[in-house]
Amino acid sequence: MSELLGVAVLGAGHMGADHIRRIDRVVNGARVAAVADPDTGRAEDAVAGIDGVSVHTEVSAALDAPGVRAVLVASPGPAHEEALLAAFERGLPVLCEKPMVPESAGALRVVEAEARLGRRLAQVGFMRRYDPEYVRLKALLDSGRLGRPLMLHCTHRNVSSPPGFTSAMVVNSSVSHEIDAARWLLGQELTAVTVLRPRPSTHAPADLLDPQFVLFETAEGALVDVEVFVNTGFGYQVRCEAVCESGSARIGDEDAMRVTTAGGAHQEVAQDYLVRFADAYDREVQAWVDATREGRVTGPGVWDGYAASAVAEAGVRALESGGRVAVELAARPALYA
Amino acid sequence: MSELLGVAVLGAGHMGADHIRRIDRVVNGARVAAVADPDTGRAEDAVAGIDGVSVHTEVSAALDAPGVRAVLVASPGPAHEEALLAAFERGLPVLCEKPMVPESAGALRVVEAEARLGRRLAQVGFMRRYDPEYVRLKALLDSGRLGRPLMLHCTHRNVSSPPGFTSAMVVNSSVSHEIDAARWLLGQELTAVTVLRPRPSTHAPADLLDPQFVLFETAEGALVDVEVFVNTGFGYQVRCEAVCESGSARIGDEDAMRVTTAGGAHQEVAQDYLVRFADAYDREVQAWVDATREGRVTGPGVWDGYAASAVAEAGVRALESGGRVAVELAARPALYA
Amino acid sequence: MSELLGVAVLGAGHMGADHIRRIDRVVNGARVAAVADPDTGRAEDAVAGIDGVSVHTEVSAALDAPGVRAVLVASPGPAHEEALLAAFERGLPVLCEKPMVPESAGALRVVEAEARLGRRLAQVGFMRRYDPEYVRLKALLDSGRLGRPLMLHCTHRNVSSPPGFTSAMVVNSSVSHEIDAARWLLGQELTAVTVLRPRPSTHAPADLLDPQFVLFETAEGALVDVEVFVNTGFGYQVRCEAVCESGSARIGDEDAMRVTTAGGAHQEVAQDYLVRFADAYDREVQAWVDATREGRVTGPGVWDGYAASAVAEAGVRALESGGRVAVELAARPALYA
Amino acid sequence: MSELLGVAVLGAGHMGADHIRRIDRVVNGARVAAVADPDTGRAEDAVAGIDGVSVHTEVSAALDAPGVRAVLVASPGPAHEEALLAAFERGLPVLCEKPMVPESAGALRVVEAEARLGRRLAQVGFMRRYDPEYVRLKALLDSGRLGRPLMLHCTHRNVSSPPGFTSAMVVNSSVSHEIDAARWLLGQELTAVTVLRPRPSTHAPADLLDPQFVLFETAEGALVDVEVFVNTGFGYQVRCEAVCESGSARIGDEDAMRVTTAGGAHQEVAQDYLVRFADAYDREVQAWVDATREGRVTGPGVWDGYAASAVAEAGVRALESGGRVAVELAARPALYA
Repeated sequence: MSELLGVAVLGAGHMGADHIRRIDRVVNGARVAAVADPDTGRAEDAVAGIDGVSVHTEVSAALDAPGVRAVLVASPGPAHEEALLAAFERGLPVLCEKPMVPESAGALRVVEAEARLGRRLAQVGFMRRYDPEYVRLKALLDSGRLGRPLMLHCTHRNVSSPPGFTSAMVVNSSVSHEIDAARWLLGQELTAVTVLRPRPSTHAPADLLDPQFVLFETAEGALVDVEVFVNTGFGYQVRCEAVCESGSARIGDEDAMRVTTAGGAHQEVAQDYLVRFADAYDREVQAWVDATREGRVTGPGVWDGYAASAVAEAGVRALESGGRVAVELAARPALYA
Repeated sequence: MSELLGVAVLGAGHMGADHIRRIDRVVNGARVAAVADPDTGRAEDAVAGIDGVSVHTEVSAALDAPGVRAVLVASPGPAHEEALLAAFERGLPVLCEKPMVPESAGALRVVEAEARLGRRLAQVGFMRRYDPEYVRLKALLDSGRLGRPLMLHCTHRNVSSPPGFTSAMVVNSSVSHEIDAARWLLGQELTAVTVLRPRPSTHAPADLLDPQFVLFETAEGALVDVEVFVNTGFGYQVRCEAVCESGSARIGDEDAMRVTTAGGAHQEVAQDYLVRFADAYDREVQAWVDATREGRVTGPGVWDGYAASAVAEAGVRALESGGRVAVELAARPALYA
Repeated sequence: MSELLGVAVLGAGHMGADHIRRIDRVVNGARVAAVADPDTGRAEDAVAGIDGVSVHTEVSAALDAPGVRAVLVASPGPAHEEALLAAFERGLPVLCEKPMVPESAGALRVVEAEARLGRRLAQVGFMRRYDPEYVRLKALLDSGRLGRPLMLHCTHRNVSSPPGFTSAMVVNSSVSHEIDAARWLLGQELTAVTVLRPRPSTHAPADLLDPQFVLFETAEGALVDVEVFVNTGFGYQVRCEAVCESGSARIGDEDAMRVTTAGGAHQEVAQDYLVRFADAYDREVQAWVDATREGRVTGPGVWDGYAASAVAEAGVRALESGGRVAVELAARPALYA
Repeated sequence: MSELLGVAVLGAGHMGADHIRRIDRVVNGARVAAVADPDTGRAEDAVAGIDGVSVHTEVSAALDAPGVRAVLVASPGPAHEEALLAAFERGLPVLCEKPMVPESAGALRVVEAEARLGRRLAQVGFMRRYDPEYVRLKALLDSGRLGRPLMLHCTHRNVSSPPGFTSAMVVNSSVSHEIDAARWLLGQELTAVTVLRPRPSTHAPADLLDPQFVLFETAEGALVDVEVFVNTGFGYQVRCEAVCESGSARIGDEDAMRVTTAGGAHQEVAQDYLVRFADAYDREVQAWVDATREGRVTGPGVWDGYAASAVAEAGVRALESGGRVAVELAARPALYA
């Protein structure tokens, strides 16, 4: 085993602290070398008991700290663009949590910056691509056994929405996972979006349009529909059925243990994404560390981050207008061909 | 046991012959008393070996034949209006196969004729209302345990479409079952329809838009989506998931026998509707016979037949226009309040 | 339709009254012609509203009543032998509820009586042979697709045992269904039986050995194990997995509706056999009526009834002794070859 | 992060090489410090590209190599006793692949040696205790929600048996996993064993009794049955149903992706244990490394290894005798109370 990969983690909030723990305890081949957070106290809490890590308030100081060879961006979305550009300047590989950059204009600047570098440095944190069920579905679709995909039926359900969650966030935060998953599974860009608004559940907060039913069209004429319902009260449920010319395949529905007791046969439903996708996060960071140590970038890149932002923006406009909104993407740089 | 209910069966084609067999062999309390079909030969074939049945070429002759106390209409759709009106004139209870009347204008005339009679005589053959799985789903929704329904996700798949099947028939023949099922399950009228057209499967006949994805809005703001795909190559699959404020329920997915052999664990998928809904047809006709012998009409009525035609017509316009089409229903007569 | 089959029902208790309702309301082609029960009051209650039926206290009077052309025996087990022999004397076809005759010696006398007649008249009420799931499993095994069967794993669970239920009745009443099902599915006689006794559930009545685990060996070396647990508290569950040389198949596990609500995904478990096997009873009696009207006997016969009694007796001895008990069957008359 | 745990891996065969890869690439906090194998070539192949690892032919040399702080025993079973005792002499923590020691007499000597040390050093490689499904079943049973366990129904199926596999190995190799799983899930010793022998599958090699049906009794009167069938032709299937006083729970049956295509709905069945239990191996070694770095032993210990050997020996005697064989365990040292 060669030297451990020293990682600077930007952001020591909920997600950042979880990644610090993951790099320290779970992932093989990496160590936390530096942490940056404006709140020094929580940064120090997050690295308590870990040797050889420096704590900073400034991103640049963390990136320049001794032993830093890669960056994990887990700060709030508005801070991502600056962090990514700073990493690019230093030639440091990056894993950036989603959304890569909330606005598509900023996301496009990141694409252009990396394209100017002429080599890929950044991976975006679409961790569903590392979920074992999604991986199997992707492999099945790519095998061609079921023929060309015609439709994806997606379900995205949460127990309840956090305080302050808006109707737009249903699209640009919750559905952004389905946006990336659909692009990846189908290998096609999404070209238009429509958002339907059933009468909201009385269990949703006032003013929150919940559920929503989002329809995407793709470059090759497939249709993707997403039920997104963030106040179901019962669980975190992520399902996907791919309907193809010669068969369909579904994931997200089965649970490994069936309990029969008074009232019937039961299968548990996960209560949050950290349970449902715990493995996916571990595998994502491990894959990123492994590839980075080999000098490669193998996961979703900044073009994927940009496309997700652009589709989500169109989705929010579709939500507001009630009509169909076309997605306008910039020209794709040759680096992402 | 009182006297058997003498039934005149109009039409001795595929469906009519099956109903003749059903009344003769399966259903308790009824007998075939008369049959009418322009093709005397096939009418006689259909009643071979059954005692006490007269064969006619004219509807009126069959309705007036000795022993006829009720009518089952299984002739082609365009002949239904005349048959229903003739039965109404004679005060005969009717079970009429779907579509009740293909055009909504004619369907409305039937509604008006029955309304003038001032009592219900006709039941329409929406047999899914008698399928045990649908019955359980309906009971669950009516129980209120899951709260108000917000969405229905429906799947309607066939192995292959019959010769001459058109894109409009996907809506007004295949989806008509979901139209009635949605109205019945939700207890609401459908108020608008949109038809999305993914790029067709290469396994569909040229010029057939298959699959289609149909969206209905309801009077109380629920959303109903239907994947209809009639050339799947793999089976007849009818599923329905009701998503409510406090939970969801799904039918149509499980098969009772699981076989594990080389290649994995398998569950059969029915190959046609006569297998999937065999019980539903038997229960439908039995329920109609039982109610008729008690002088009652308990099943879906002519208003349901009319509403299905009106929604299907709007659906065909939506298919052609690519846009959203509102459903315009006539005023509902007090008899159907 | 030819004349309805007039049936004499012997016994108007729980099961008899249910069969009277079934013949009157559900089954096609038959009518209740006579009823015999020592308790005239409950016999008259059971036939209230049914025309053309005579009520008797004596079996012979019912068999000789006008219009009786077949017999359904639903009286208590100890009365069956006499009823069957009386029917045989009159040449009347019989459907006899299980157990055909509780003691194998009496059962053998019935076999010998029918064998002397030289033609089959009686069918025994093993209704699982008419359950759609069992029918599919049988067809799959008979197809040879899975190769030779090696093991059957059976589960037989009830919510709770009725008052007075004894450890012996767990074997000779509950397990008797699995005895017949195993003989039928495998097409082999059972040759030995062992009963294992786990420490009883604290929810079982004192002195009741519940659960029990019963092992049968077959003539061709297959193994049949039965978990029988009659005080589970949660439901009526009948499952069967056939393990063959090239695959396995399982029935009894899936329920058609899946409900997801707080606490997880649920599938109902039937609470009693009248729900789980409602269809099987209807199909059994319909099949018996249809065959009888055609002068045939197609269902399980008196040899099956005798074999079940003989195996159950060996089972009770095995329960008492704690060891393996061989099943001794009489020579099989040529009529049942 | 403190210093990586240096591990000496004994044995560089199939399992040893896999563990070397796991420690080098997957597990966090450890490194391969030394390898011992009589075949130096394959040892060197197994560590190619790994820095800082020394290769040895002798166990003692590997244990004494620089940087070694723990031992993973993956050599053939007959070499385990000596390896364990050598590790004990040096006070080194050990993870020992199963069987800990093939003969119970040798296994008992290991128990006694560790008991003399007065502290636990060794963990035995029963990796099912780290499988997420088993972990959930264990947690459910320990929660008491289902009441006292009465029966375990286990299934253990392989595609085919390796060359040279004997009828005794079906019990002492295949079933040894169920022996440990049952002891662990129930928290009870197994006290007697009976092996039933259905007529073998024609697909099994000549002279191999396959399938077998193994029955264990436990100290508190529960019953454990195991279908073991190692030439099914179709897959690697490990299932377990725990039947308790107030409910049952089943694992091993569901697969996350359901594919519907011509012929029906399919769920894959794993083809070997490395697929089915891939996660379990990773979690086992990670848990051992984590605990070892904290100076603790948390997994199954040498008493579990000894008990498994003793039960398996009784099982082989039961297979040979055809009868019930009681399990005789030595007195349990206080260290394992």
